[in-house]
Amino acid sequence: MTTVGFIGLGSMGMPMAHNLLAKGFTVQGFDVRSDSVAALAVRGARPAATAAAAAAGADALVLMVVNAAQAEQALLADGALEALPDGSVVILMATCPPGAVTALAARVEAAGRRFVDAPVSGGVVGAVAGSLSIMAAAPVAVVERVRPVLAAMGGKVFHVGGQPGQGATVKTVNQLLCGVHIAVVAEAFALAAKVGVDLDILLEIMSGSAASSWMLKDRGPRMLHADPEITSTVDIFVKDLGIVLEAGRDARAALPLAAVAHQMFLATSGRGEGTTDDSQVIRSYHALNGTNQESRPEPPDRLIQA
Amino acid sequence: MTTVGFIGLGSMGMPMAHNLLAKGFTVQGFDVRSDSVAALAVRGARPAATAAAAAAGADALVLMVVNAAQAEQALLADGALEALPDGSVVILMATCPPGAVTALAARVEAAGRRFVDAPVSGGVVGAVAGSLSIMAAAPVAVVERVRPVLAAMGGKVFHVGGQPGQGATVKTVNQLLCGVHIAVVAEAFALAAKVGVDLDILLEIMSGSAASSWMLKDRGPRMLHADPEITSTVDIFVKDLGIVLEAGRDARAALPLAAVAHQMFLATSGRGEGTTDDSQVIRSYHALNGTNQESRPEPPDRLIQA
Repeated sequence: MTTVGFIGLGSMGMPMAHNLLAKGFTVQGFDVRSDSVAALAVRGARPAATAAAAAAGADALVLMVVNAAQAEQALLADGALEALPDGSVVILMATCPPGAVTALAARVEAAGRRFVDAPVSGGVVGAVAGSLSIMAAAPVAVVERVRPVLAAMGGKVFHVGGQPGQGATVKTVNQLLCGVHIAVVAEAFALAAKVGVDLDILLEIMSGSAASSWMLKDRGPRMLHADPEITSTVDIFVKDLGIVLEAGRDARAALPLAAVAHQMFLATSGRGEGTTDDSQVIRSYHALNGTNQESRPEPPDRLIQA
Repeated sequence: MTTVGFIGLGSMGMPMAHNLLAKGFTVQGFDVRSDSVAALAVRGARPAATAAAAAAGADALVLMVVNAAQAEQALLADGALEALPDGSVVILMATCPPGAVTALAARVEAAGRRFVDAPVSGGVVGAVAGSLSIMAAAPVAVVERVRPVLAAMGGKVFHVGGQPGQGATVKTVNQLLCGVHIAVVAEAFALAAKVGVDLDILLEIMSGSAASSWMLKDRGPRMLHADPEITSTVDIFVKDLGIVLEAGRDARAALPLAAVAHQMFLATSGRGEGTTDDSQVIRSYHALNGTNQESRPEPPDRLIQA
């Protein structure tokens, strides 16, 4: 396993491809933006003019595109699957609905190539550092074959199941927790604002209690501002919680909390605020309760140290 | 402020009274269980035979009883309020509904005594260590007067607002987050179980991602067992999320996530499982989805280290 095709050289894919090069792999890089292909070539990659050219002669083909539609476009419409040698492995690392991943895996296996469902978490920081958590789902023998490729990009490679789609499901469960955690912080802060509790003190207390979460500490402070810097938008969670609910429908699993949280993000987007920071889902609570960011009372004397 | 009456010498109240004694306060202790009164007397407290006796001549009266009904019983029916000197301060530290706290405060103020709403977080560990977080709500001058008493029991004393009831509200918001966080972990694990993802690996990945929460790390592992050790019961959250929803009704604030989470705890209790560990709210998801603790697939090869 020495030659790796790489399709999708964006903010995540580019540093991931850099790490493959650094580990000595021959990388054939393709992106719809030719300047990205040229930039990777400067680092020692073979520039590919098409998706099919990136796949030609590769032992494995990594897909780090935006969504399942782009993965299907590259593999099927643009001929990357046909260009892959028999028995080579397609590694889908983009975040996609489990059902779409399962369907794409079937197409790939039917064509005599192998498929590994391998979404990641860790963001751009993890992609640059090569410390991504990779959630790989495929028969163990297939995961073992591509292990050196995955290990070049991730700090931890988890084998989460034997069937493609299970990796996407783990990523989906991750997004279920993230989305509900953001919405419930908004619900809690909106209640506090309605009854006139100081939100700075509330955040300080909650962050040190059993009520704490990664999202409370990260998004909570941004909920105290009317227009915070955007790190991830409301519309991302309209999409991701939509994928969560789609996974629940496919599995016939009830997801009442995720469904409610989705409605709050959806309404925020529906008011034309979908491109604001996802912490601004709190505006849907303010809209419901007739409060706003300015409903916060004057802080009383702050921390009285014992 | 040297003499403190203390009513409610349970698992929280007893160590809190110990810390008052250790800081040099004269403590007049009362509990319905006379052996608790005797035990505190051994540590140097004045034993009180009645709630009124604990209040007589005290500069402040701490109430660490089970609920608002017990606080009302001690203050009104049992004569503690009447026995308190004019201008002395009632400090309610039990977890009570904000509305009940506001009503009780009005009764106390009408009788010429002052009232501080001061619930705590930190549990028995914090009570013993004197490191409780205390959420005090009252006019700043009143909080200042009892500051030495609060500081003897808490590591941090937060002044969360000028009106009694706001402390109870902060504690209520804390419980809103805790309850929804437990339920959403159950919802996420139940989805994973339905689609056949290994829950040990899922917990390992989520605990290290943006999906993490204090409750995920604490309750998550207990959700993987059918009968975990009980640290706090399902019925506690049936009660606490009930208080949350009552606070929302009083404030006219919509709490859709808390309402859904309450239903899941309620159904668990309704099946006769209210005295199980609160992590077992996952059983309501299993009941809905037709899964169970044994629905977990055989773990595939675990962590493949990069």
